Parts: sequence; structure tokens; C-alpha cells
Amino acid sequence: MAIKAYGAFAADKPLQAMDITRRAVGPHDVQIEIAYCGVCHSDLHTVRSEWEGTIFPCVPGHEIVGRVSAVGGQVSRFKEGEVVGVGCMVGSCKHCHACDEGLEQYCEHGFTGTYNAPIEDAPGYTLGGYSQRIVVNDNFVLKIRHPEEQLAAVAPLLCAGITTYSPLRHWNTGPGKKVGIVGIGGLGHMGVKLAHAMGAHTVAFTTSEAKRQDALDLGADEVVVSRNPEEMAKHAGSFDFILNTVAASHNLDVFTALLKRDGTLCLVGVPEHPHPAPTVGTLIFGRKAIAGSLIGGIAETQEMLDFCAEHGIVADIEMIDIAQIDEAYDRMQRSDVKYRFVIDSASLAKV
Amino acid sequence: MAIKAYGAFAADKPLQAMDITRRAVGPHDVQIEIAYCGVCHSDLHTVRSEWEGTIFPCVPGHEIVGRVSAVGGQVSRFKEGEVVGVGCMVGSCKHCHACDEGLEQYCEHGFTGTYNAPIEDAPGYTLGGYSQRIVVNDNFVLKIRHPEEQLAAVAPLLCAGITTYSPLRHWNTGPGKKVGIVGIGGLGHMGVKLAHAMGAHTVAFTTSEAKRQDALDLGADEVVVSRNPEEMAKHAGSFDFILNTVAASHNLDVFTALLKRDGTLCLVGVPEHPHPAPTVGTLIFGRKAIAGSLIGGIAETQEMLDFCAEHGIVADIEMIDIAQIDEAYDRMQRSDVKYRFVIDSASLAKV
Repeated sequence: MAIKAYGAFAADKPLQAMDITRRAVGPHDVQIEIAYCGVCHSDLHTVRSEWEGTIFPCVPGHEIVGRVSAVGGQVSRFKEGEVVGVGCMVGSCKHCHACDEGLEQYCEHGFTGTYNAPIEDAPGYTLGGYSQRIVVNDNFVLKIRHPEEQLAAVAPLLCAGITTYSPLRHWNTGPGKKVGIVGIGGLGHMGVKLAHAMGAHTVAFTTSEAKRQDALDLGADEVVVSRNPEEMAKHAGSFDFILNTVAASHNLDVFTALLKRDGTLCLVGVPEHPHPAPTVGTLIFGRKAIAGSLIGGIAETQEMLDFCAEHGIVADIEMIDIAQIDEAYDRMQRSDVKYRFVIDSASLAKV
Repeated sequence: MAIKAYGAFAADKPLQAMDITRRAVGPHDVQIEIAYCGVCHSDLHTVRSEWEGTIFPCVPGHEIVGRVSAVGGQVSRFKEGEVVGVGCMVGSCKHCHACDEGLEQYCEHGFTGTYNAPIEDAPGYTLGGYSQRIVVNDNFVLKIRHPEEQLAAVAPLLCAGITTYSPLRHWNTGPGKKVGIVGIGGLGHMGVKLAHAMGAHTVAFTTSEAKRQDALDLGADEVVVSRNPEEMAKHAGSFDFILNTVAASHNLDVFTALLKRDGTLCLVGVPEHPHPAPTVGTLIFGRKAIAGSLIGGIAETQEMLDFCAEHGIVADIEMIDIAQIDEAYDRMQRSDVKYRFVIDSASLAKV
């Protein structure tokens, strides 16, 4: 049965309406009528083939919230009508060390991405959430416990939320810890909200004086304009952990200098052009580390969603119709969004 | 009272004999007649002023083994005639967080180096172990429990030993762990011996096929020639920890690629020219880290010395008279030493 989707037929073409099919509901499958889908920078990089390996036609979208419309015979955890989410992954090997530890994002055989990943079903690779419906193995479906009126703003939690939550938890953010969040965009604004809710003294770093009040409104205890060396110097050697959400190439030394001994600067964005080489002496003279982190596992994603529901946390969003996606991409590239676009999937019926 | 020492009057002058004085033994001091002093790359960098800030005349040396010749009235842990060691530090503030935790090397007010560090005693900065005698606060004196015939080979443990022991312990090297040691020189040969003694599966990385048998003799379970991509590829994603002792600028990505998820590449050498910028994607897709580590605290240095005494571990050394020091520096720069030069301090009486 054909459903409406929106995607790109080639890297240099704008996104457009297309008909796609979803597989029949298998015994372990959950069929979801998509209500909302967040718009992530990865969507744009993929449809424009800025990262190699995009298979066309490409339907992006991996911040999915919707309602269960059918379940397979072996599915006991979900029932029709329930509100659920799907994030960046729809499969993994489930038997490697990483999967055994609930860290499917590091699956040693490679996880199956929600779009652009090889699978057996037609057309041979996954098609994402810019569509009316998706069918997903129940192990990769998340329960959403937020109230109905927040569901659109829950969608970005499935990627931006877990990508910031997981490293904050892994490096033990919480009361008594001083935590920095670099970059106040889609990921960073979630990082500020989450670090604050975890009880950390949360400092937002932005290059823009104009974002100072916004960052305070998001929950930052302090805001530092990272282009101001005097403001930066006041925080030298004081951070337990700094989460850096900025993918654009920039000097990492200004942040490692702000770490305490044994502190970690964690990167979650892959820069198109490499960051300048970090100064090794800064690492050695404080036993500091520069690390990376990738989204989060399925169990941790559920934990994050439950934590957010309990603390009333959602993303700050701007809702769009699917027909506005190209404009949204352009604005996202200019950082002209507070802080995440979310597609109202009902608009797909009109294209 | 003047004693003989050997040092440099200027960065471009060879080392030569000089007379220096040591302070009178204070209540908390230990006076040591130096028997042996190891020759570290830092000595060379400092006397040649390759790192900024060398104060001349400069007497280097921070791998000191000797015998106590006097103790102050408040010293109860040491007595005359006892064999002791002094490493890279002779003081620290003793009241900051780092000192409280026994991590004097990260003293928030800066530790006092064994040479080239400001102090109140004449000449206003510390003079190191290329000398007949040294007077050190008892908190920075280590007990040596190795047998008499090993004492010369114990000297390098005070810097090369602790610099490799501390990160191996901090990152939990031991049975069941696969550990790499990059570079088989003064530091690296100690890293191989220590990681092996800790029970880790120890892999030595060298750029030189010629060092393969040497590395096996030191205790490596495997040796990989890092310039051989095929040999490297066999170890992809398999290391818990890699200790990189090479200070010369080189590509770090070839080693981060060999780490398991959550693995750490630890650097202990400050490169003169920066390493090429590491690839961030490799860190993100495996939650890997690049970290640094600096020598070790005093308590940990004692632990390392005791561990080495128990396991019969010393450095592999080549003994020299002080008059051979320039030749030793030249050979050290060419990596033409297995694996550490140690000065027989008795030779100072002859200059």
C-alpha cells in the first residue's frame, strides 16, 4: 500500500512529494502513523549527499513521534493507539558486545539507520520519517509518556535529546558538577535543559552576545560568550565536563583550558573540515581528555524520554508543513531557528 | 659547602663541570649523596632551552638514586645510609585539591621541579641530579627496595617508570585488557615491562622492524610495525588502552582506529610541532578518547617502585661517566640507546 513521503531524487534536487511503500507488519513489527518528525542537520547532509553514500531517492527523518496503528503477533509491549517514538536506529545485530550492553549505536556490525541504511525490504534501504507511516521492529520503538499537547516538541528528543543526554550521563553530570554546553542550537539547547535538570551547574557557551538571554531562559546558570577571552579566562580550570555540540571547525584549546584536572571535552558533531590540532600539553598537564559520543542506546533513549516526561522537558520548536522543508533547511543552515523545526506530518496528505 | 655538578652556562654551550652549593639540612630535609642519575629527554630540552624558560646556569637530572647522608630533626621516615630516590618533583603546595589527593604533579599552584624551578634557596631555582649531592624535603623522597646491584637501573624508574606506570594504572590496565605501547624508547620500554607485569596482553608498536625482537624480549606479547598498514588493520577496534610515548609529530588516527569502544589513547609526550588534527568521527563512532598524563604523584611513585622491586623490574640501561654526557645526548637524539643512559655519579669526582 502506497503512502505519501517527501524526499530527494538527487543531491542537487529540492525535496518533493513521492509515493513509497512500507513492508507488511511482521510478527515483531510495530506500524506507526507518523504525527510529527523533527528536522535534523543530518537530514540535510544526507539528502544533499554531503556525507558520502546517499542512496536516492532518499527520504530523511529520524525524530519520529506517532501512534501505533498495528502490531505483529509477537509484540506484547505495544498496542494500537499508543503514542510512540522512533529515533536514529531501526535495527542492529543484537548479539555483539555493544548490543549486549544496550549500546546499539556502537553495534559492531553497524546499526541500521532509520534512513539510508541497507535492508532487505523494498527498495533495499531504509526510508525515514518524512512520511505518513513507518514499520519498525518493536525493539527499536520507544514509549512516549508526555501529554498529548507536547508531542510535536517531543520529536527532537529522539535525536537531539539522546545525543546530549547520553554523554551527560556517561560522564556523570549531576549535582556538584560544573558542566559546559558549547553551541546553543538544536543539540545545545537540549544539552542546557538536560544538564540543568540533572542538577549540574550549567554554563552555556555561545559565540553570540544576542543568545545570552535565550540561554538563561533555557536554564543555563551562566552564559559565556566564547569569543570574549576575558570572560573565558574567568572559568579556566573549572569544568568537570564540557559537551561541545558545534560541528563547524573551531579551536578546541579554548575549551580544554577550561577543564579541571581529569575533565573531558566531548564532541558530538563531525566537522566537515577538521578542527585545528588540539594542544597536547593542555591534556598532559591536567590529565584531560577529548572524547566523542554518538546518540545513545535504545534503553537509554527510553530512560531519557521518561526523564524528560518527568521533568516536563521538550524541545523548543517551530512547526512547519512539509512543503516548507526547503525553506527550513535554508534557515537551519543560517542557525535561524529556535531551536528545531518539526514537520506536522498531517501536511503530507495535502501534497 | 661546594659540591661538584655538571651543567650548562648557556643554551648553545656544551655541559661542563661547575661548583654548586646545597642548602643546609632543615628539620624536614633529607640530604642524599647521589649514586646514579638517569638521563631524560627533558634534560636535553631544558639545557638547550628548547622549551622556553630555562634559567642558566642549569644543572639537569631528575632520575636520582642515592644514599641518605643526613636527615633533619623532624624526619622520622628516613635514616642515614638508607637508599632513596628523587624524581621529577621536590615540592608542591601540599594544600590544594590535587595535593590533597596525592596528585602533586597536578598541584594547582604548580609543583617544584627537581631542576629549573623557582625556590628561595640559592641560586633562586632548583639544580638537578647531575651533581654529587641533593637536599630534598622528606615528602618528596622515595624508598628504594631493590637490591644493591640493581640501583643504577632503578634510577630511570623515577621519571620514565612513573610516567608510564601512572596512566597504565589510571586507565585500569591488568589481566583481560589489551594494551598498546607506542614507541620503544626510554619511556616505551618501561611501558612494555610494566603493562606485561600488570598482566595485560601487551602489544608494542614500533616504526622499526629491527626493534621487533627487542620488544618481545622486553615482555611484549605481540609487536606491530606501525608503518605496515596490513599489520595495523589486524588490530582494528581491539585495544582497551594505548599508551603513546612518542613525542615526535605523527598521525594519531592510526592508533585511535585500533581502540575498542570506550578506549583511550593516552599521550605522555609534548610534541615540538603539533600532531596532525585527529579525526573526530573515529572518536564519536566509538566513544573513544585522546587524553594526556603527566608523571605520577609521590604516593603512586612509591607504589610503582615497590611494584617494580616485587616484580624484579628495572630499566635497561647503558652506564656513562658524566664526561660522556654530550655524546649521550647526541645518541639519545638518534634513538641510539637501549634504553636509558644512567650517569655513574662517582665520575663527578673526576671532573
